[in-house]
Amino acid sequence: MTTPIDLLIEARWIIPIEPANVVLENYAIAVDKGRIVALLQQNEARTRFSPREIKQLPHHILIPGLVNLHTHAAMTLLRGLADDLPLMDWLQNHIWPAEAKHVSAQFVHDGTLLACAEMLRGGTTCFNDMYFYPKATAQAALSCGIRAVIGLITVDFPTSYAADPDDYLTKGIAARDELIDNPLLSFCIAPHAPYTVSDRNFTKALALAEQCDLPIHLHLHETIQEIEDSQQRFGMRPIERLRRLGLLSPSLIAAHGIHVNENEIALLAEHGCSIAHCPSSNLKLASGIAPVSALTDKGVNIGLGTDGAASNNRLDMFQEMRLAALLAKGSSGKADTVGAHQALHMATLGGARALGIDAEIGSIVMGKSADLCAISIDRVELSPCYDPVSLVVYAAGREHVSDVWVAGNIRLANNHLLETNEIELIKLATLWQNQVCPLDV
Amino acid sequence: MTTPIDLLIEARWIIPIEPANVVLENYAIAVDKGRIVALLQQNEARTRFSPREIKQLPHHILIPGLVNLHTHAAMTLLRGLADDLPLMDWLQNHIWPAEAKHVSAQFVHDGTLLACAEMLRGGTTCFNDMYFYPKATAQAALSCGIRAVIGLITVDFPTSYAADPDDYLTKGIAARDELIDNPLLSFCIAPHAPYTVSDRNFTKALALAEQCDLPIHLHLHETIQEIEDSQQRFGMRPIERLRRLGLLSPSLIAAHGIHVNENEIALLAEHGCSIAHCPSSNLKLASGIAPVSALTDKGVNIGLGTDGAASNNRLDMFQEMRLAALLAKGSSGKADTVGAHQALHMATLGGARALGIDAEIGSIVMGKSADLCAISIDRVELSPCYDPVSLVVYAAGREHVSDVWVAGNIRLANNHLLETNEIELIKLATLWQNQVCPLDV
Repeated sequence: MTTPIDLLIEARWIIPIEPANVVLENYAIAVDKGRIVALLQQNEARTRFSPREIKQLPHHILIPGLVNLHTHAAMTLLRGLADDLPLMDWLQNHIWPAEAKHVSAQFVHDGTLLACAEMLRGGTTCFNDMYFYPKATAQAALSCGIRAVIGLITVDFPTSYAADPDDYLTKGIAARDELIDNPLLSFCIAPHAPYTVSDRNFTKALALAEQCDLPIHLHLHETIQEIEDSQQRFGMRPIERLRRLGLLSPSLIAAHGIHVNENEIALLAEHGCSIAHCPSSNLKLASGIAPVSALTDKGVNIGLGTDGAASNNRLDMFQEMRLAALLAKGSSGKADTVGAHQALHMATLGGARALGIDAEIGSIVMGKSADLCAISIDRVELSPCYDPVSLVVYAAGREHVSDVWVAGNIRLANNHLLETNEIELIKLATLWQNQVCPLDV
Repeated sequence: MTTPIDLLIEARWIIPIEPANVVLENYAIAVDKGRIVALLQQNEARTRFSPREIKQLPHHILIPGLVNLHTHAAMTLLRGLADDLPLMDWLQNHIWPAEAKHVSAQFVHDGTLLACAEMLRGGTTCFNDMYFYPKATAQAALSCGIRAVIGLITVDFPTSYAADPDDYLTKGIAARDELIDNPLLSFCIAPHAPYTVSDRNFTKALALAEQCDLPIHLHLHETIQEIEDSQQRFGMRPIERLRRLGLLSPSLIAAHGIHVNENEIALLAEHGCSIAHCPSSNLKLASGIAPVSALTDKGVNIGLGTDGAASNNRLDMFQEMRLAALLAKGSSGKADTVGAHQALHMATLGGARALGIDAEIGSIVMGKSADLCAISIDRVELSPCYDPVSLVVYAAGREHVSDVWVAGNIRLANNHLLETNEIELIKLATLWQNQVCPLDV
């Protein structure tokens, strides 16, 4: 007697992430109603299940869908607008003025569509976003069939989106109430950063997060200037300020976390906070190099983020995985820190755990959602293969992602995006580009 | 009256590298007998030339072919064999034993074929190699139609290839004499590193280099241990030792150059030495972060290298360009150091200059060889395009390379390698893998 299921995926290699440091050869994943119902040997799978569909991946490595723990998806429309500038110059003289002039619900919707296409193509099945017009972000994500964690942003300054801190939070909660029934969506409260959010606003954001049982997503200790300004304005470093305000908890997702001293690392560990490590963006804006080796040694949970495409300039989690592993070694002097498996863990389960959705995604385990990414390794640049985990992290790139599923639904099939017309999307991006800043070389 | 030529390449964007910071829109490159005979506006080109072939690149950026300034091509066969280990452990306990057991002329030939396929696919048209059996390297390169600079290696210890330092050099020069008429080949004398080459051997290598007018390619100041060992053994740091031996000159290509102090940077600048900067390998082996911002400030010429695939694990010059730019910013705290144009310069003309072949390759200039790389930008992840140079360095990857020419001959056409059967090559790599270390997970 075989059990009928929706889908059986047979892969040459499967890296389940849990248990750690395991690679399964010639295993299969049984998927039904969007969930992983079994992970077992291929010959056993064929006798136990009668799948409506079988997907064979004979030259592939299957991993959990990647989790982009920190991004501003809509900023893809500003990709490459202003490069080679420090954070504050970049923000104050380029990004913020461009945003003030152009950002609208339509901008956010269109930019997020572009971002989702790029992310799905590259094996990212879930992203944690922070931007204006979060409802537009959510709607674009839903239309692409990608999982999204929508940041309900608040900042002290007004924008076209909201007039004041309370208005931001009210609008955010209204968007969440409207969208809460979508199983691919979840939400964070997102007070932007210590330098843009007052104590009062933080306190209100925290109360709301606790009331709605939502994580808090913010920028933290990204630059030395942020810390010096905080010392001048508040008489303390931002982490200490957040501690006093009660924000340090397992619900806190701190993006960047670059300039953290030993005491602060201990504090983050003690309170169970997570870091969204963004190695490309941290380097590109010359913000610095996060002490990832020390953070992981103390047990701080780490996920990986691309940040926005304006400071990366990719939404490419393969790039962040590789760079996270390499940079941790090069900056600590320890070649055995952040190995390939650990980097892959950060890009999957580490992100899921930070978001509080690790019961749902982040590893290939029975009962979890079938968010999966297949990597085709039948390529000269991926030959030979002594170790599939090393191959994924150090040699493979997003271009090798062949198939992607979100909650059991195929979104990328044989390198072809199913929900997106890429040619139309490129035209749309060009329209926005011509509006923001016509190319003049 | 129009001039007949072999090929006219019309591209949406051309980045010639010389002059600096220039991007040409809707220009064309006229190619005849393998050389660039003109670079001019498309409409003008059509009236001046009657090309036998026209290649249109309407959604592309054309750049000079990339120059990989430091690699060990054959080591692709050891890609991923031993990861997450420090240099000396990696070398002494993994790489050297594997090499001692398996490296032969056939190994080098086959590994180099695999490397050349990967490099050509990724827009690299010239590589500077250092490995055993250099004649096998050269023959494999020639069969792929890629430009190569063959390092005539010498080390103090014997291998299956050569018995002693003199034997290495004798065999190297014999290989060179045999191959010297191939226009795609040139040669370096390659004394491996200060910790594997005696004063006597260095002196002999230098004499030979001067006699044959060849550059010298070696590893230098890659690890702190190398420097400490040198201080103990020779009473001085390796750069000082090389200075006394007379090796510091514009002919010197120093791979890595990580741990260089202010005086040493000044020495390198004063003597016109070049650095082959290998950011991925330097990080992966935890060797450290080269002070690229300081080196360029002092005017030291810098090219980029992948190092071997065993310590990278890619031969991907796009990766090295992006990482060189990002890492220089993040480690120096200066977001405006090593901008996109400078990174692209390092990956092209910087490498060519180090090799002494910058009259032949490295920029798109009349009279130079038509070594060219076209990047297709009609992709969601490369949209929008505010700045083609930024797009190439920060957003594009080797997967976007569509067409590659070496000396006017097309080697990659519409993503298809012309001289290589990739399926056969992957099989060959797997055969070697099974010999070196059967996969066991």
